Amino acid sequence: MELWFLGTSAGMPISGRNVTSVALRMPQNRGTFWMFDCGEGTQHQLLRTSFKLSRLEKLFITHLHGDHVFGLPGLLSSRSSLGGTEPLDLHGPQGLREFMETSFRISGTHLNYPLQIHEIVEGKVFEDEAFSVEAAKLDHRIESFGYRIAESPRAGALNTALLADMGVPSGPLYGKLKSGEDVSLEDGRIIRSSDVIGNPLPGRVIVVLGDTKPCASAIQLARGADLLVHEATFSHDLAIKADDYTHSTALQAAETAQAAGAKRLLITHFSSRYKPEDLSGLEAEARSAFPYTDAAIELRPYEIPLN
Amino acid sequence: MELWFLGTSAGMPISGRNVTSVALRMPQNRGTFWMFDCGEGTQHQLLRTSFKLSRLEKLFITHLHGDHVFGLPGLLSSRSSLGGTEPLDLHGPQGLREFMETSFRISGTHLNYPLQIHEIVEGKVFEDEAFSVEAAKLDHRIESFGYRIAESPRAGALNTALLADMGVPSGPLYGKLKSGEDVSLEDGRIIRSSDVIGNPLPGRVIVVLGDTKPCASAIQLARGADLLVHEATFSHDLAIKADDYTHSTALQAAETAQAAGAKRLLITHFSSRYKPEDLSGLEAEARSAFPYTDAAIELRPYEIPLN
Ligand SMILES: [Zn+2]
Ligand SMILES: [Zn+2]
Repeated sequence: MELWFLGTSAGMPISGRNVTSVALRMPQNRGTFWMFDCGEGTQHQLLRTSFKLSRLEKLFITHLHGDHVFGLPGLLSSRSSLGGTEPLDLHGPQGLREFMETSFRISGTHLNYPLQIHEIVEGKVFEDEAFSVEAAKLDHRIESFGYRIAESPRAGALNTALLADMGVPSGPLYGKLKSGEDVSLEDGRIIRSSDVIGNPLPGRVIVVLGDTKPCASAIQLARGADLLVHEATFSHDLAIKADDYTHSTALQAAETAQAAGAKRLLITHFSSRYKPEDLSGLEAEARSAFPYTDAAIELRPYEIPLN
Repeated sequence: MELWFLGTSAGMPISGRNVTSVALRMPQNRGTFWMFDCGEGTQHQLLRTSFKLSRLEKLFITHLHGDHVFGLPGLLSSRSSLGGTEPLDLHGPQGLREFMETSFRISGTHLNYPLQIHEIVEGKVFEDEAFSVEAAKLDHRIESFGYRIAESPRAGALNTALLADMGVPSGPLYGKLKSGEDVSLEDGRIIRSSDVIGNPLPGRVIVVLGDTKPCASAIQLARGADLLVHEATFSHDLAIKADDYTHSTALQAAETAQAAGAKRLLITHFSSRYKPEDLSGLEAEARSAFPYTDAAIELRPYEIPLN
């Protein structure tokens, strides 16, 4: 799995930084990608990556501020024009349906795929065998959600040393044991899968937060995350301004990551006042409280390794 | 005056071509610019020019298809964030107000300037001392307008040779005569301004059409235009497809320019099937019917010289 930032700018685009959107390349066997937020120009940014809009499976909106949603009508239209026919799930706060339906009706847009709009409340918003998604309310001027994407645990490793000691021949039997099946040997012995497979390995957890000031629910949602994406609109010398606008400083984002016991923090949603060369300052500020922090860079992959 | 194409692509952006928008730099004494259509990413394109959003005075929408309007909410928001406080007039078809009001309400957007939305009908949509704007309905799947921007005539040239023959001393008297005032010389003679000023010079006429198939009202609106901007979604081998989708071919755009007696034609709104290297073919096709044609190139000025 890889996370790509399509935009890292707060409020409006500036030269070299677009407004907010994040793409999450899902595991290869799923063959799709998910997105979080969709500011204006997100579809233009995707043109600079290898993501294909037809492979977009789910889109989660954190909140309805324009810099997070004004790219939706165009991106969803283009998915249709580019041949996307698979259903698409769009999750987000109340009001999202009216915005989409009005935009499509007024513009005479017809999609060639089923668009399912889910106006969410807190709690589990999606679950299948491989992933679950939980939403929690944050603390922002308007209703703003964070999303916790949790991969299901995967089977532990086959204890091949033990199997060799037991004289089990390698080959197809290993595959059966690995997939949870017990097997009978020619000598009559029965080998139980559970005896030769290690504990299940924890799935990966990615947490993407919408705009927020520091709050307990952000820490709770991000508990133990392998990767936390947190806004850092301002540096901490503007902490009062951040509070006024219900945003976070880089230091506050790091304190949340630290308190949550996250493994890695990527800060984003930088005020347009910060030039590209200023971002290392925000990064350093955050690292003072949480060393495993990077200031997100657009259009490069952030790999999320297996646990 | 200069015309800038911010987008020349039909339907969706492709690498190197954005969806439709045109900026018109108004004469220096006015100090503003006007825009026609505003596809997604138009504000991003403006960042690559010297136009300042705070100087945007009027915005005319030809029709409500997404590739012509989905950039409006973001651009109008950014005009506010960037310090624009002057009133802005937004003209376009019925439905524009609902789209804007819904987008702003859902996203909690508040503008720091007065936005006047004018849902137009055919006829004169604006007039002041220097310019008038006339709208006419074209022939497209949905209601689509063209706009004729006509500059007022300017005073003719002062006949300085005649004044020298008459023994009128150059200096302040020339200025008075030029501005239409009659003057008395020291020897008692009265010089009438109208005797020493040539005929008024015609103002410039720019016509920007929305998406359309060939129609009489396009020719009528574009009569004698100094510059005509016309869509050319397809080349003429796809004339049947163009007709099905109520678009024009490059040849048809040129035939309209020719029939209207326009002086210059810029074709735009190219289907995403045409790569940059294909556009010279569309241009050649149009030139076969109207030699003064260019395929519009984004982000360069097209000067409109005084008559
Ligand atoms: Zn934001
Ligand atoms: Zn169009």
